[in-house]
Amino acid sequence: MSLINRLASDQADFEQRLSALLDRGDEQSRDIDARVAEIIAQVRARGDAALLDYTRELDQIRCGEVAELEVPATRLHGALEALDGEARQALEFSAQRIREYAERQREGDWHYEDDYGNRLGQRVTPLDRVGVYVPGGRAAYPSSVLMNVVPARVAGVGEIIMVVPAPGGVVSDMVLAAAALAGADRVFTLGGAQAVAALAYGTDTVPPVDKIVGPGNAYVASAKRQVFGQVGIDSIAGPSEVAVLTDGSLDPEWAAMDLFAQAEHDEMAQSLLVCSDPDYLDRVEKAIEAHLDGQPRADIIRASLAERGGLIQSRDLADGAAIINRIAPEHLELAFADPEAVLPLIRHAGAIFMGHHSPEAFGDYCAGPNHVLPTAGTARFSSPLGVQDFQKRSSVIHCSAHGGRALVSASEKMAEIEGLAAHARSAALRGGGEQG
Amino acid sequence: MSLINRLASDQADFEQRLSALLDRGDEQSRDIDARVAEIIAQVRARGDAALLDYTRELDQIRCGEVAELEVPATRLHGALEALDGEARQALEFSAQRIREYAERQREGDWHYEDDYGNRLGQRVTPLDRVGVYVPGGRAAYPSSVLMNVVPARVAGVGEIIMVVPAPGGVVSDMVLAAAALAGADRVFTLGGAQAVAALAYGTDTVPPVDKIVGPGNAYVASAKRQVFGQVGIDSIAGPSEVAVLTDGSLDPEWAAMDLFAQAEHDEMAQSLLVCSDPDYLDRVEKAIEAHLDGQPRADIIRASLAERGGLIQSRDLADGAAIINRIAPEHLELAFADPEAVLPLIRHAGAIFMGHHSPEAFGDYCAGPNHVLPTAGTARFSSPLGVQDFQKRSSVIHCSAHGGRALVSASEKMAEIEGLAAHARSAALRGGGEQG
Repeated sequence: MSLINRLASDQADFEQRLSALLDRGDEQSRDIDARVAEIIAQVRARGDAALLDYTRELDQIRCGEVAELEVPATRLHGALEALDGEARQALEFSAQRIREYAERQREGDWHYEDDYGNRLGQRVTPLDRVGVYVPGGRAAYPSSVLMNVVPARVAGVGEIIMVVPAPGGVVSDMVLAAAALAGADRVFTLGGAQAVAALAYGTDTVPPVDKIVGPGNAYVASAKRQVFGQVGIDSIAGPSEVAVLTDGSLDPEWAAMDLFAQAEHDEMAQSLLVCSDPDYLDRVEKAIEAHLDGQPRADIIRASLAERGGLIQSRDLADGAAIINRIAPEHLELAFADPEAVLPLIRHAGAIFMGHHSPEAFGDYCAGPNHVLPTAGTARFSSPLGVQDFQKRSSVIHCSAHGGRALVSASEKMAEIEGLAAHARSAALRGGGEQG
Repeated sequence: MSLINRLASDQADFEQRLSALLDRGDEQSRDIDARVAEIIAQVRARGDAALLDYTRELDQIRCGEVAELEVPATRLHGALEALDGEARQALEFSAQRIREYAERQREGDWHYEDDYGNRLGQRVTPLDRVGVYVPGGRAAYPSSVLMNVVPARVAGVGEIIMVVPAPGGVVSDMVLAAAALAGADRVFTLGGAQAVAALAYGTDTVPPVDKIVGPGNAYVASAKRQVFGQVGIDSIAGPSEVAVLTDGSLDPEWAAMDLFAQAEHDEMAQSLLVCSDPDYLDRVEKAIEAHLDGQPRADIIRASLAERGGLIQSRDLADGAAIINRIAPEHLELAFADPEAVLPLIRHAGAIFMGHHSPEAFGDYCAGPNHVLPTAGTARFSSPLGVQDFQKRSSVIHCSAHGGRALVSASEKMAEIEGLAAHARSAALRGGGEQG
């Protein structure tokens, strides 16, 4: 069995093979959905009591009340203070760069006057309260804390509630330190669908939020789908993906390592490389072979590459770009000496890493742009997490007595066409100038 | 039975009564969801054949193939040409103002350089293809066509596919005229969950789109929820709502008519008015009584006001604003002589109509801002439909050989903390400058 799939776009079954490679299966499970629906119903009905029951059962935490699951501010700041110098510097460097990028995304108010003296505009306000879900368990991802909390803080969100499961009572000090650094207001060691339900509906102890962001397992994803409408949610994250488009100018070892960096996340992660030169694809395959065994997470990488990885031979650059647009990858590396010349060919990608010196790994941590990106082809219609996700717009319409008159006849006519007489009359009342 | 509910915020059961009034019930029905899941599965599996079966059965249309359900461009333009002068003028006036507002929303690219010579930015691109669902049947809403199609066009969407059900083969010429004016590329007389499924997955005749927008009945709403992920969707629209906040300076007849204009949409529509002066609330109630019988849609208005309408007495202005923020209404009228002084108190509303001369009816048609707005309290976390809904952002990260080196050590350290060795190595390879 080969290390990684080989495809070529001039093969008759290419579209079929590419589709099979990209297919993530049906992510939703009716069993999980039903179980999650029950958890949400219990938390809505019984609040803290249900939350305690599930947390004891699923996370094996002994505690008498939910308030004990809140991490005291002193512990958060203690975790930050206790970091070694290098770790603290890496966290602060990353947070600062994420903040700088986010600050440029902040939307502002604007308005203009039409020809009649009516004032029209857009008002932007932050969300009142946001919930950030941070995965716990085996791996600790402080970068995920920064990427979700920092833009919320930059947007001006009133209060940020973080939840992180602590199976057996264990929670990562790095995650707590990142929460303190990024500025989470309160942290609860809660997880799973029960944490999402508590954030959506509130309990006596956990305050209800307006939006829930952050990645989680299939139960968390199902819970987010189910509470959508009651609260806002960010996108449902699928397995992570990278696609490298290159003319063969990227050192094959660098290419292999960039593919490994994606594949090591988990076995469902996807690493693709597209190039028109079959000899280069051979060299990358050899580099994969040469470097794979030295990887600490070689087993995961091997499974990911064999099942979901691909070296794809395109006809030419235009064809390669078309394949990328078909994939709409979460991460795209344009590994060319002059990537700016290739960029106009790209329509869909969550984040685009330009040239040979912008590996996707920078984007995971400290490049500045958010690492929460649209997966599973959703870059066709959605965007990276950003400050915009923590603000909302209101339209503002301010007609003067004079200016309002200019809108009466069109409003009346449209209302008449739509058979809505009170609309017409409500508009017409403004036709006489000052109210009578 | 009184015409409209009366509440006062100083009553002990106020929060309970307000919650009951705002409660929309559980909008999702498991029966509808199951039926819709079957329709989607059939359209995915059998394409045009399933689409034809459902359209024949549910819309009583006789036709041999789906292509016959496409409205020819000549018919669209014929409908526009055939409009009488006043109707055409109203449509064009509205479309022009919606376009002007939308153009100010268009997001642009930006980038900046960090201290190390790395270039970071955001690239904005339009969606390739969008589907617009327009309700058919009893009522025709050309305004809805303009509000959904115009911002997509302004965003630069490649192709706009509109669907509108035509029960018994009948479709509104006004809707077709609006489609021609707004610039829909193709129009199919298809509706229901089957139209949503066809747009999401494509059939031989209906091309697959990247996002589906537009209001519909419970089947359409369920279908949009179920195809979310495969395509993007706008929000799920609930019943329309208005809240009027006033100091009593709005003529009670005008107030009554503004409430009627909301209530006449349907029996679930919600009309609320908040004021600290009980005498004023009495006067508005009298005006409702005086003018209701004259309304062509009096029965709908009566049912809506009795079931879901409310005149709410607040303690004072600050309390009134707090009630508004609790409601987070789709439409808010600030009926004050100086509404600018009140605006800072408002945190959540889809569209804000300022002063006495900005009735919500202007916003439905020709004020300029979009009439597709967050309902059911979702203005707490979501925004009016806009150009932003038809664009997506990609992050762009372009490190130079020199600048990239500045990101290596933080990336390595963070990757080490997260246990991701290939991430660390991928970053470290960029530490040596030019590739080897």
